[in-house]
Amino acid sequence: MNVLVINAGSSSLKYQLFDMTHETVLAKGKVERIGMETAMLTHEPAGKQEIREVSEILDHTAAIRKVLRILVHPKEGVLESMEQVHAVGHRVVHGGETFSGSVRVDEEVKREIKRLFDLAPLHNPGALTGILAVEANLPDVPQVAVFDTAFHQTMPPKAFLYPIPGVFYRKHRVRRYGFHGTSHQYVSGRAAELIGRPLSELKMISCHIGNGASVTAILHGRSYDTSMGMTPLEGLMMGTRSGDIDPAIVPFAMDKEDLSLNEVNSMLNKHSGLFAVSGGLGDMREIVEAAEQGDRNAKLAFDMYEYRLRKYIGAYAAAMNGFDALVFTAGVGENSALLRKTVCDNLTFFGVKLDEAANARPGGGDRRISADDSAIGVWVVPTNEELMIARDTFEASRAALQPST
Amino acid sequence: MNVLVINAGSSSLKYQLFDMTHETVLAKGKVERIGMETAMLTHEPAGKQEIREVSEILDHTAAIRKVLRILVHPKEGVLESMEQVHAVGHRVVHGGETFSGSVRVDEEVKREIKRLFDLAPLHNPGALTGILAVEANLPDVPQVAVFDTAFHQTMPPKAFLYPIPGVFYRKHRVRRYGFHGTSHQYVSGRAAELIGRPLSELKMISCHIGNGASVTAILHGRSYDTSMGMTPLEGLMMGTRSGDIDPAIVPFAMDKEDLSLNEVNSMLNKHSGLFAVSGGLGDMREIVEAAEQGDRNAKLAFDMYEYRLRKYIGAYAAAMNGFDALVFTAGVGENSALLRKTVCDNLTFFGVKLDEAANARPGGGDRRISADDSAIGVWVVPTNEELMIARDTFEASRAALQPST
Repeated sequence: MNVLVINAGSSSLKYQLFDMTHETVLAKGKVERIGMETAMLTHEPAGKQEIREVSEILDHTAAIRKVLRILVHPKEGVLESMEQVHAVGHRVVHGGETFSGSVRVDEEVKREIKRLFDLAPLHNPGALTGILAVEANLPDVPQVAVFDTAFHQTMPPKAFLYPIPGVFYRKHRVRRYGFHGTSHQYVSGRAAELIGRPLSELKMISCHIGNGASVTAILHGRSYDTSMGMTPLEGLMMGTRSGDIDPAIVPFAMDKEDLSLNEVNSMLNKHSGLFAVSGGLGDMREIVEAAEQGDRNAKLAFDMYEYRLRKYIGAYAAAMNGFDALVFTAGVGENSALLRKTVCDNLTFFGVKLDEAANARPGGGDRRISADDSAIGVWVVPTNEELMIARDTFEASRAALQPST
Repeated sequence: MNVLVINAGSSSLKYQLFDMTHETVLAKGKVERIGMETAMLTHEPAGKQEIREVSEILDHTAAIRKVLRILVHPKEGVLESMEQVHAVGHRVVHGGETFSGSVRVDEEVKREIKRLFDLAPLHNPGALTGILAVEANLPDVPQVAVFDTAFHQTMPPKAFLYPIPGVFYRKHRVRRYGFHGTSHQYVSGRAAELIGRPLSELKMISCHIGNGASVTAILHGRSYDTSMGMTPLEGLMMGTRSGDIDPAIVPFAMDKEDLSLNEVNSMLNKHSGLFAVSGGLGDMREIVEAAEQGDRNAKLAFDMYEYRLRKYIGAYAAAMNGFDALVFTAGVGENSALLRKTVCDNLTFFGVKLDEAANARPGGGDRRISADDSAIGVWVVPTNEELMIARDTFEASRAALQPST
């Protein structure tokens, strides 16, 4: 069975085609600048040369059509016909309180994703557009929605509620939702396999540290608390997001700099974080290099980023009264040995002991980076949200694909 | 030498008169509803009956005059003449980055307190009014300003800076200042005495849990990080303050409920916290009682309050890579055995082991509440900000009072 995974944004669309027999990737790629004359398709069929095509792509429906055509192209394709796309899985950022797992898309699911536009105005519209575009091209293929928030629906009320007047929760659904759920769920499951113990017996802290970043306390396999909140702004310092600040800074800044609601949102989401502190660097590799060359702002950005991450790890250790494993994933988490080292070297009180050589060794793949005698296992587990989406899609759509008996 | 300590708010004024020879309190009291016809003076001379007087008190100058008169009153007084007030110490909430310790008040100090009105619009004006009122009544007596923020001026940049565009720090002085500094400094010093080790060797976490609440990481006697931020809103859930929330909730709430900047500030500072979650209860004792009688909202309020406090303790354990002592102080910290027990019972991973009997024992005073074999010492230390202000005032004004030789 082949599953096509779609991650649709407002003007872009990423895809990955899996053969679920052995969970192999047959092809992946992306369409950028949808709606413009210079839209670009980048297609990477497994074992073949990457292809780039620039052309006008009117909308998401046209983009999906283009993707399907190249998937069955005699030369660059990997399928014989479109009938070989058996199911399509979509990444949807916000599932609100409605979705605590992945679901087959039907009319009600589409309506609910739309009702959640209010909570995720930048993300859910793109996902719905992707769903409708697939529907237009492949009307009979089952589609599955996989939500970034779903894994976190197990949080207890004391973790997900904010101490503000109840009207905001009851009327406007203001609560902690958390994001990156698919990633936290994937890496915690994978880490448990590597540890060789059931997830249901473990206390884990997973750090998804990419351009967006979040930490999750995973108690016996269930999300217990997570650093992102009602929106992806809360929590850790990120590439361009501030993360936690004194909430009183928001009205203060609006007053002093005469900012509108949109402007203050944009300031905190797009012009803060590593970018703001380092003075324009947005990438952890650049920041580490600049810091090593004596750039003070870059050093400060790194220090703040690490310090704020480390405090969350401590907070979640207290939330669960301990932890067995610490997992790093996503761009920075997988690649910055210095960040991991700085965090771990300052958590020796907690029983963390790094294996410096293992941590410093380049190259990807799952690996343990704590010393043999470390009380806490520290792991690097490359995330694979697409595979997780493909698995959920496979599970949720299998029933529909069985011939009726 | 006698020191009068003044804590002046916008329409109230508390005072305490110390004889510094043995740090004894000669009298204390307060004036409430200053500016109204029904202003009330409450005066407690040591060893004598408490006195209450209702009368019109026009302003702070009149209030101070009333306090001085009762201090030298033949019957209710404790001094023979006003000349026996040798120095006056003032609690000033915000000292910005200018004041890292207590200072003698002069023209420049008054100007600076005024320049900080912008950062502490609710607090600094009252304090300045108090200083001017003392000056009007006792023009030759040295006055000392003791700042709530001063102790926290040792925080490193990675702890005090926010990851937002630099203009807000450079132009508007947006940074973490922290508050309750006098209390955190006092209880950490006292705890070190009780432990019998120099403060400079200890890592401490002090929890000032009153109606306002903050936690401080104290590394070798210096504030390393603290939960309150640019304003007293950030950090822990409090009586009526939210503490930490997703900053994106602020513009969201303003938009959905059409709130002004003042209204959203008021909502987060006065209508949130324990009060909002419990459905109108504002006091921890009431909440614990209601929770014991099955009130779910009260139980949730307690759980959130405890959980958020515990996460800060974990965060600061990670910030300092460990801690030797945990100190509870202020109204709730000193009196709620249940809160302390719930926190400590969930920190066993950190090496905290409560002595249940010691924790439950009623009655005040400094005491250790951790078991003998607890790796972390847990202490209850009643705070005494007035004494700390009196000590600083004594130190800072002594030089001025020496006859010149």
